[in-house]
Amino acid sequence: MATLGLIEYEAASPEVRAVYDDIMTVRKTDAVNNFWKALAHDPVTLRRTWHSIKEIMAPGALDPLTKEMLYVAVSVTNQCGYCIASHTAAARKAGMTDAMFAELMAVVGMANETNRLASGYQVEIDEQFLPGKKR
Amino acid sequence: MATLGLIEYEAASPEVRAVYDDIMTVRKTDAVNNFWKALAHDPVTLRRTWHSIKEIMAPGALDPLTKEMLYVAVSVTNQCGYCIASHTAAARKAGMTDAMFAELMAVVGMANETNRLASGYQVEIDEQFLPGKKR
Amino acid sequence: MATLGLIEYEAASPEVRAVYDDIMTVRKTDAVNNFWKALAHDPVTLRRTWHSIKEIMAPGALDPLTKEMLYVAVSVTNQCGYCIASHTAAARKAGMTDAMFAELMAVVGMANETNRLASGYQVEIDEQFLPGKKR
Amino acid sequence: MATLGLIEYEAASPEVRAVYDDIMTVRKTDAVNNFWKALAHDPVTLRRTWHSIKEIMAPGALDPLTKEMLYVAVSVTNQCGYCIASHTAAARKAGMTDAMFAELMAVVGMANETNRLASGYQVEIDEQFLPGKKR
Amino acid sequence: MATLGLIEYEAASPEVRAVYDDIMTVRKTDAVNNFWKALAHDPVTLRRTWHSIKEIMAPGALDPLTKEMLYVAVSVTNQCGYCIASHTAAARKAGMTDAMFAELMAVVGMANETNRLASGYQVEIDEQFLPGKKR
Amino acid sequence: MATLGLIEYEAASPEVRAVYDDIMTVRKTDAVNNFWKALAHDPVTLRRTWHSIKEIMAPGALDPLTKEMLYVAVSVTNQCGYCIASHTAAARKAGMTDAMFAELMAVVGMANETNRLASGYQVEIDEQFLPGKKR
Repeated sequence: MATLGLIEYEAASPEVRAVYDDIMTVRKTDAVNNFWKALAHDPVTLRRTWHSIKEIMAPGALDPLTKEMLYVAVSVTNQCGYCIASHTAAARKAGMTDAMFAELMAVVGMANETNRLASGYQVEIDEQFLPGKKR
Repeated sequence: MATLGLIEYEAASPEVRAVYDDIMTVRKTDAVNNFWKALAHDPVTLRRTWHSIKEIMAPGALDPLTKEMLYVAVSVTNQCGYCIASHTAAARKAGMTDAMFAELMAVVGMANETNRLASGYQVEIDEQFLPGKKR
Repeated sequence: MATLGLIEYEAASPEVRAVYDDIMTVRKTDAVNNFWKALAHDPVTLRRTWHSIKEIMAPGALDPLTKEMLYVAVSVTNQCGYCIASHTAAARKAGMTDAMFAELMAVVGMANETNRLASGYQVEIDEQFLPGKKR
Repeated sequence: MATLGLIEYEAASPEVRAVYDDIMTVRKTDAVNNFWKALAHDPVTLRRTWHSIKEIMAPGALDPLTKEMLYVAVSVTNQCGYCIASHTAAARKAGMTDAMFAELMAVVGMANETNRLASGYQVEIDEQFLPGKKR
Repeated sequence: MATLGLIEYEAASPEVRAVYDDIMTVRKTDAVNNFWKALAHDPVTLRRTWHSIKEIMAPGALDPLTKEMLYVAVSVTNQCGYCIASHTAAARKAGMTDAMFAELMAVVGMANETNRLASGYQVEIDEQFLPGKKR
Repeated sequence: MATLGLIEYEAASPEVRAVYDDIMTVRKTDAVNNFWKALAHDPVTLRRTWHSIKEIMAPGALDPLTKEMLYVAVSVTNQCGYCIASHTAAARKAGMTDAMFAELMAVVGMANETNRLASGYQVEIDEQFLPGKKR
């Protein structure tokens, strides 16, 4: 069980229910996942985190599928089991095919490899890549 | 300077030059960046790494721009200075606008935050997210 | 089971028992947790690690509760399941309330987010933050 | 220079200036540090991040100094140079002495060590540390 | 179950079987472990990853046991449960004794500690350690 | 400059000088590197860290060169600039050739890649790799 347990809808305060309702509306689902039920012990963090995610994951210059795949990339790099499971599911729901998942994994794996080759060889940044040089 | 120094084209063996030539052809550029010049001290790793990246980053189920942004997401999560600089430059070259960069950063930041909230609250994975449950 | 298994008190050598006894005395408990029983296969590391922790976690300029919360912050950032569970329990025993836990998580989450925003935007360190400038 | 450069107060839009003004008021300072000037290219993220930090870092169940030290602990674990420099400075301003800094570092170092010993020895979580067992 | 499930030998395509056969031949075993069965959903990544590992882990300037221990060191640092279990088993098969495992863990733990002490104290690199200085 | 500055031999207390002397004796060198001079502001941590490293890095079941290469593997994975520079230098001093360094980097890069493939594909641990199964 989660550290402080999970707060189900029935046992939730009106403040928490309002967030749960908004999550279900925005995500077009009739269930709230465990992450939010665990966070509900801290209604301030629950509200802030949900509002931030709602704002960040909305369609914008990047589409929702791309954003979910970026979320998976970070979660895999950090080895967060819960996040890998939940955001892989979310990315699939947003349209990620098996072929897209496979390429996503290949890029994430490769990036983690070359990140270490670059640091291990102590490679200095090329002039052309310095931010100040190109603006 | 890099651990073993950088090998410039003029000083490179034919084996290394062949990789440099392929990099410049595939990337439509007349320069090879420091990462490859540092790796060139190990021609086997140079060749394998380049061939892997060429295969992985080619257009497929995901487009090159999405792949470069995934690369940036991983590099930022890992705090690899060289990789952040070089792949941010590569993503821009592939079409990333300032607005896309800003949203990319927002997603990466948020994912790193909720990765820790999920683990810190010791949230157990929802039944619905377990891979075996949905196939 | 742990890689090398766990060594229970009854099966422990006098050298290992001496460390177990000291752990139980210092922590005012009649049980030794699995971490130490797993380390006991290497009595040298067992002894050194226990003596280091005993020295580091003792009251000093920082109180024991603050130290346990710092331990949780690191463990959550590193995604170490065992350490999150054991040090969250230790922090509670040292007096961490649910409200303190919630704020601890909020800070850890936020720090992980802004760590990536700072690196991703490649922000240079302000003059005023350079150590040499203020001493 | 930062990826998108820094936006100084004089060149900032009214929306960005409002955030800068609030930062200076809350922090009782007449300067805004580079992190915010870099984020200002994305006024939405600037505003959200500042409001989140203001809410999270305010005095509550934990005092501001403890929160700043937790921030340093995470930043050091993640190896974020900018964040280590800026939050070490903030923690000092909030009252962290050299002795407190030294103990903070000792705990962070030790936690990073034992996180790996626990995972490397594949230690299973003790019954008593399972969250569900104690509530 | 793995995200896309596992592909057993009987259900595998000739392309995938060829990789499985090579794995069993090179490793002198009659079983393929789950990692490869999960990757088999992406035959291109399966083949590339196996060929890279085969090339990298072959005896060279470093012997296979040293290479397996390096693999464990990285996996423990990254907190990858699957990798810790599988590469610890592989290292044992390559000759790692309990005493070697214990020293490996001690070094990995210590390195993770001093990595943070060095960064947390913001120690500047000694002249003598700069790569350019010694070549 | 380091957070608290560096303490040179001439300015050091007898307690700190004793550690410096032991470092120079054990390492057969007439200089103490910056890491220790930065830690010297906390003589307790200086002493404990040095004694731990001296014990851990001494020849045992693993030789000093293997231990230094493990140190580099961890430091590269963690992206610790100071540690990569100093332990690469130490490994060279202990006998690491360019060819060994190249293979070390290749293994570290590959391990970081497959760590993410294993986690990203959510591969469950094979029965045969479970520690309890084989002892």
